[in-house]
Amino acid sequence: MTSSIFRCAAALALAAALGACATTPALLAPPGRGSGDLGVVIERESGTLGVLDTSARQRLGSIEGLGDLSHASVVYGRDGATAYVFGRDGALTEVNLLTGRIEARVQQAGNSIGGAISTDGTLVAAQNYQPGGIKVFNARTLELLADIPAVVDGKPSRVVGLADIPRNRFIYSLFDAGQIWIADLNDPAHPVLTKFAGIGKQPYDALVTPDGRYYIAGLFGEDGLAKIDLWAAQPKVERILPGYGRGEQPLPVFKMPHLRGWAVAGRRAYLPAIGHHEVLVVDIDTWQEVGRIAVAGQPVFVMARPDGRQVWVNFAVPDYDTVQVIDTQTLTIVHSLKPGKAVLHMEFTPRGDAVWISSRDAGHISVIDTQSFETLAVLPAQSPSGIFFTSRAARTGF
Amino acid sequence: MTSSIFRCAAALALAAALGACATTPALLAPPGRGSGDLGVVIERESGTLGVLDTSARQRLGSIEGLGDLSHASVVYGRDGATAYVFGRDGALTEVNLLTGRIEARVQQAGNSIGGAISTDGTLVAAQNYQPGGIKVFNARTLELLADIPAVVDGKPSRVVGLADIPRNRFIYSLFDAGQIWIADLNDPAHPVLTKFAGIGKQPYDALVTPDGRYYIAGLFGEDGLAKIDLWAAQPKVERILPGYGRGEQPLPVFKMPHLRGWAVAGRRAYLPAIGHHEVLVVDIDTWQEVGRIAVAGQPVFVMARPDGRQVWVNFAVPDYDTVQVIDTQTLTIVHSLKPGKAVLHMEFTPRGDAVWISSRDAGHISVIDTQSFETLAVLPAQSPSGIFFTSRAARTGF
Repeated sequence: MTSSIFRCAAALALAAALGACATTPALLAPPGRGSGDLGVVIERESGTLGVLDTSARQRLGSIEGLGDLSHASVVYGRDGATAYVFGRDGALTEVNLLTGRIEARVQQAGNSIGGAISTDGTLVAAQNYQPGGIKVFNARTLELLADIPAVVDGKPSRVVGLADIPRNRFIYSLFDAGQIWIADLNDPAHPVLTKFAGIGKQPYDALVTPDGRYYIAGLFGEDGLAKIDLWAAQPKVERILPGYGRGEQPLPVFKMPHLRGWAVAGRRAYLPAIGHHEVLVVDIDTWQEVGRIAVAGQPVFVMARPDGRQVWVNFAVPDYDTVQVIDTQTLTIVHSLKPGKAVLHMEFTPRGDAVWISSRDAGHISVIDTQSFETLAVLPAQSPSGIFFTSRAARTGF
Repeated sequence: MTSSIFRCAAALALAAALGACATTPALLAPPGRGSGDLGVVIERESGTLGVLDTSARQRLGSIEGLGDLSHASVVYGRDGATAYVFGRDGALTEVNLLTGRIEARVQQAGNSIGGAISTDGTLVAAQNYQPGGIKVFNARTLELLADIPAVVDGKPSRVVGLADIPRNRFIYSLFDAGQIWIADLNDPAHPVLTKFAGIGKQPYDALVTPDGRYYIAGLFGEDGLAKIDLWAAQPKVERILPGYGRGEQPLPVFKMPHLRGWAVAGRRAYLPAIGHHEVLVVDIDTWQEVGRIAVAGQPVFVMARPDGRQVWVNFAVPDYDTVQVIDTQTLTIVHSLKPGKAVLHMEFTPRGDAVWISSRDAGHISVIDTQSFETLAVLPAQSPSGIFFTSRAARTGF
């Protein structure tokens, strides 16, 4: 045994001495390291991904060469090590967090706004502004499998609010046409489309509730939201929260809030009020507003800790250095913090013990204990924006 | 580039020719493969773990030498590749699913009934029948860090219902003493204990709700259940469901159902009725029974699909070849299946598209599509019992 270990070490030393694997960069993680506690941060200006380790609260390394990463977003393959990065420039890149390598890359559109992955992990879909529609790729090779234009009355439409729903289907909204479509990709060569028309003007973003039951699209062109109950025998579009939106709008809107940031905790949803310094509380059985909570600015992301006990809120300019924490039992703000200038995103660890917050202009990520609000770590990052943990692989609509 | 690849290949061939790594078995998975879609099945008679790939719906391989695995259970480290196997014989084994290797193993008690891992992943706790109490280990090395006897009035007590709760705390029940204890392990050298006495006779199992809010212990010695609201400012024990238990008991009880199998979906919990051919429906706001569903036998595991839309039930002898599916919207049985004799366990893939069912006497695992109820795969396994997927790493109380 000793001699074979010696021989193994000697052979590896020999291989190293030969410069044998010089063209292959070192792995970011040793063999046997799992992917469950990893994640990435988008470094928009440098076009890099920082690979994050939420157990050690460290950066494992960087993956370079991702192009324009402003407003980039990420989804994960079922194994949690494979990440798909959707660049605003229309590039789709498949990377591996454990090896740190780019596995495949395709320039799939002129202007893209994110994507989704099918339940079985075999299909990646991108939603596009230019030329509109969605494209569906083989998740391993990024070979194009289906190109589904979003043309209504002869006019192409930009696509937003793309999300996976069970059985290898994708649901999305057509901004220009005011429709919601479901594409069934069980046979990628023959997508089956179900279309909902007349949903309202200019859907600008959408979400699927954590149980996959409701698809809800925000409307830029009018008040209220469009909702579909995907569990209904005959799904149809209903309008909810008629007062929600730009409406009378006593305040200018500095940034349209992300619907994907909606928090659903227990039987309540917590929504960013548009243009107001408020978070709305909605009963998701009746879809009626049941309360409002005054906050420090115009909310952008309103995110529930995984256990639903807290909701964390960040804000548009000029209050974008601040984060506030709402206790969902008392509906009061229990903590305010200033983790750094230009807070762009927040991501909870899977069991909710910590939240990772990116502060773009401060050039760092803060790791905060969600119980004591103590800062556990501050990690350098170049203009960090979105933070995406691999635990998203296990969730519908992420 | 070509020559360096050649040199790399040559050096690796040389290493292989030297038999350099002959003592190291091949990895179960290639470098770069993540752990998010893996799992294990306990093969009780052979003392092996089958390593499962839920994407390919295949076995990746086996890990041998685990000892007595009857009633064995598994928890996962934060990275999802490290699994801790608690054998009924008191052995605790740390294995790696990607390498297929045993990393550490310790004979920690004479008779053990499972364990838990701390939120930060650094501490593994085992609950013991013999000699009773819990032991806490360094999760990497399995070095003993804390030995916490469960002695009340001079008598040692068996420990059951151990679960992790936030902030590196563990909660558990003392079968013989009728108490619930919380051990705060933030400083493992100085555990801080909080004790709840007079909870009722003979707590035999317990669970934490998915949000980590409620700890609920079943009582073998009397009717009803003991509940603690861990979010309360001053947590205290309350008795709920006074009619739940052995009670008048018109039917013999063939197997005490697993409380850990309780399904919590939306605002309802679905419980195995003890001794009856029924599943109870309970409102978790009021903790009142709101319905009963007649089923094929005495339920053992009552488990919710991750989206809460379905609840799957298996049964004690003589109905242990059957599984039934309840639709939570209509509270009716929508499907019955017979996947094989002696169904012992069921585990859902993280997004709920499939369920994996072990049939001990049939010697196989069935992979079932939860929407079409089609059998997607049947995999051989030697007397399979518990199935544990790595997605448990992201959940409190698992």
